[in-house]
Amino acid sequence: MFFKETLAFAGKYSHKAALPASRIALALRFYSAAKTVPLTAETYSDKVQRNPNFKTLEDGDLTFFRSVLKDDNYLITNEADLDFFNEDWMRKYKGQSKLVLKPKTTEQVSQILKYCNEKRLAVVPQGGNTGLVGGSNPIFDEIILSVSNLNKIRSFDSVSGILKCDAGVILENADNFLAESGYIFPLDLGAKGSCHVGGVCATNAGGLRLLRYGSLHGSVLGLEAILPDGTIYNSMDALRKDNTGYDLKQMFIGSEGTIGIITGVSILCPSRPTATNVAFLAVSSYEAVQKVFVGARRELSEILSAFEFMDGKSQLLTARYLKADHPIESGHYPFYVLIETSGSNRDHDMEKLETFLGNAMEEELVDDGIIAQDETQLRNLWSWRESIPEASALAGGVYKYDVSIPLKDLYGLVEDASQKLAEANLVDFDSEDKPVVEAIGYGHIGDGNLHLNVCVREYNKQIENILEPFVYEWIQAKKGSISAEHGLGFQKKNYIGYSKNDLEIQLIKDLKSHYDPNGIMNPYKYV
Amino acid sequence: MFFKETLAFAGKYSHKAALPASRIALALRFYSAAKTVPLTAETYSDKVQRNPNFKTLEDGDLTFFRSVLKDDNYLITNEADLDFFNEDWMRKYKGQSKLVLKPKTTEQVSQILKYCNEKRLAVVPQGGNTGLVGGSNPIFDEIILSVSNLNKIRSFDSVSGILKCDAGVILENADNFLAESGYIFPLDLGAKGSCHVGGVCATNAGGLRLLRYGSLHGSVLGLEAILPDGTIYNSMDALRKDNTGYDLKQMFIGSEGTIGIITGVSILCPSRPTATNVAFLAVSSYEAVQKVFVGARRELSEILSAFEFMDGKSQLLTARYLKADHPIESGHYPFYVLIETSGSNRDHDMEKLETFLGNAMEEELVDDGIIAQDETQLRNLWSWRESIPEASALAGGVYKYDVSIPLKDLYGLVEDASQKLAEANLVDFDSEDKPVVEAIGYGHIGDGNLHLNVCVREYNKQIENILEPFVYEWIQAKKGSISAEHGLGFQKKNYIGYSKNDLEIQLIKDLKSHYDPNGIMNPYKYV
Repeated sequence: MFFKETLAFAGKYSHKAALPASRIALALRFYSAAKTVPLTAETYSDKVQRNPNFKTLEDGDLTFFRSVLKDDNYLITNEADLDFFNEDWMRKYKGQSKLVLKPKTTEQVSQILKYCNEKRLAVVPQGGNTGLVGGSNPIFDEIILSVSNLNKIRSFDSVSGILKCDAGVILENADNFLAESGYIFPLDLGAKGSCHVGGVCATNAGGLRLLRYGSLHGSVLGLEAILPDGTIYNSMDALRKDNTGYDLKQMFIGSEGTIGIITGVSILCPSRPTATNVAFLAVSSYEAVQKVFVGARRELSEILSAFEFMDGKSQLLTARYLKADHPIESGHYPFYVLIETSGSNRDHDMEKLETFLGNAMEEELVDDGIIAQDETQLRNLWSWRESIPEASALAGGVYKYDVSIPLKDLYGLVEDASQKLAEANLVDFDSEDKPVVEAIGYGHIGDGNLHLNVCVREYNKQIENILEPFVYEWIQAKKGSISAEHGLGFQKKNYIGYSKNDLEIQLIKDLKSHYDPNGIMNPYKYV
Repeated sequence: MFFKETLAFAGKYSHKAALPASRIALALRFYSAAKTVPLTAETYSDKVQRNPNFKTLEDGDLTFFRSVLKDDNYLITNEADLDFFNEDWMRKYKGQSKLVLKPKTTEQVSQILKYCNEKRLAVVPQGGNTGLVGGSNPIFDEIILSVSNLNKIRSFDSVSGILKCDAGVILENADNFLAESGYIFPLDLGAKGSCHVGGVCATNAGGLRLLRYGSLHGSVLGLEAILPDGTIYNSMDALRKDNTGYDLKQMFIGSEGTIGIITGVSILCPSRPTATNVAFLAVSSYEAVQKVFVGARRELSEILSAFEFMDGKSQLLTARYLKADHPIESGHYPFYVLIETSGSNRDHDMEKLETFLGNAMEEELVDDGIIAQDETQLRNLWSWRESIPEASALAGGVYKYDVSIPLKDLYGLVEDASQKLAEANLVDFDSEDKPVVEAIGYGHIGDGNLHLNVCVREYNKQIENILEPFVYEWIQAKKGSISAEHGLGFQKKNYIGYSKNDLEIQLIKDLKSHYDPNGIMNPYKYV
């Protein structure tokens, strides 16, 4: 019960401040460590076999890698130490790699890949290893190439706002560095204390503030990436505008390490807002949630930086996890909304927010609500949103679906999935006798992005068979995406057909072969 | 003198309102029509030869195209009518196409390309034909495929803000359509009355408000595009977030018709700001311009929607063109800045703008300035910025360089180019005896984007030889881009090496071959 004690220490409402994301990840790992993570290759032996074209690691290979890295500390071969890299943080997937390489320079990454390509040694690129689809862990004996030692800020131009850094810089460190100059990293997510800048680019992470700062396809200006044959692609000097040729860097954004390894990132960073306000609202229907969103976008417009919705069930679970009373005290409601504004003038922003909320109350769209009065309250309100992922996993595990669905249909998926599980008599919020605690929904309304979390006491095939392909078919019928931001990885490799047509899949495969003809990069995944 | 009379009618300060961009383009054409446009193939006979692998158009081909299009009005073969499509609007480039095809459906575009690919008939895709680098005109006898008949809005979702339309919809029409629902197209540029939505995507246009709404790589959600072999790529149903596979649509954004023809666009549109303010400032040095920019970004932050700078010379030229007195009456200054704010609350925005300007005056960064008090004044101030391109071309022609340069060095290019031309004794603002009127600079400071316009009374090789490769070498030395937003087209094909390294160029060529192995799409251009 180590984990629960940690949280009790965190105390009422102060979870976020007391327990940064990096510690959460570690705590979760420790909590789950009692259980052994089954090997992915065994769990999914019906779906995946080792590709015999790949060479098996030999002593001669190790000798070569040692000669490149020059320091034995940059090679990990010890079984116990390998676990951390072989397993994902949810402890759902586990590979069997015998070697982790942690190069210190771009040139070393290039030499390693060139060698692996020639020898047909398969490679899994790894950043902060905070992914949710098993994309950063091997399936069999692929070599893990961790970029964690590429962790330097290269430069920052405080006139243009352009940050250049190594791929292995931790997101939170980059953001803290930018804060010193009055800038902000244009992306934020729960795992920021562990995830890497390169990793968020490789997976095209969306996160909490996409609504305000847009997608990485717009803000990343240049990349340094190593192609499978060791070629160093470098567009780090690109300026904000450059229309000379195909925008090649775009192919690496969201490629999940399948056509190269990102080693450097150049990104345009906005001014850090000096005023942030947060409101937390209770809403009685999903229809009203949508109306509140349309109103917020119209009236809060340029200062709206987050519009997060949570269903009532997610808040019950979070209350249990935080051991705290919910900030909305007047009762329990079917839906909650967190609205954040970020601007340059607190008084102006507060006036807009209060006017907006006054209108929403008058129109009876909102049943109750509070506005944070200081920084502590603001953090506390955010913790009711940001704790949902950890609260979801508390009972043992969680089946996570991160999907895009046209807004009007979005919550229907949670309702229908809940009903399917209930019909199979698998759900009980309190009793340990049932494997499922609850199916909950929350997410970024502004992006049409729903997180469906099926919170379980154990992973089992019966639950999985009820959920899949049901969830994917449901999304396909609504023309949604089966992966809004988590990517494909291993988990969704076989389901891409629910979101992409045959031609698109063929074009993706063609591009993969074009850049990685030997298929050594992150095999058995993606597509 | 037709053109000048038209402008006199437009009257003082009201140029923009009275003369929309579409009419400007036509007027300019008419004005220049006295001159014959030389054939590109003859002017540049030392640089380009017809590729003998391409088939010459025969009667049998015309029979096929007629059978696809079903209506003779959709084929143009008449010499006089062909001119409009063979020539660019600056009347600098002229091709020798014998056939323009104007399909009405995506399926027809597919059939046409499939046939052309099989027969090795070269094709030039054409949108509004408002490009500035000769990218939309043939060099030899390529067939012109105009998308102007694909001009329907397909759908608009007023909750998500997603617009889906045909590629041939005129930008201004799309924006007017969106205005009815309180939305705005996330891009604006001078040629909006003529240019197409598909064309701005194919060229990755930047425009006046990139600072606020970001690049098309971020806002375009999906495309429909026809590959050279007739395959219809379709990602029009994509939602705001979709992380399933490489983001293939990105390759078409900025590809200038070299790997396919865009026939449909799905784009995320922001709420239309309800309050817009404009200030026009006089600044005495380029250093002060940069400081004003940093201050504006800090203090105006989320409401800053444009930060345009103009040198004093550009304003002298514009005053001559508009036949009007400059809005800043206290004297002539070396630099001017136009700042636009767009927000949801006019009082808040005006307060921020006035505070910012007060501070800038106090710090002696700004010498004089005015704020528009109503919509008419706002338009009038914008006309001093937006008229520069037409004012530049008034004497006969203009060599346009649209480049990105790190901010601190940006204006140095104008100074150095001016000096080179002056040393060759080619420049006189007033006397018709000298071929060059003036070299002027203006552009989007916020994007590091300079427009260097060398305004001439005639195009001649001596001027061209002074400017090129000098301008490109200058930019390369500062690690800038030789094309910030105009693209490569024909003009800059041979200069890409100044902005991209050999490896990048090779990767671009590889990708071109990958998608267009027969090279039929927009040949002799790009790379």
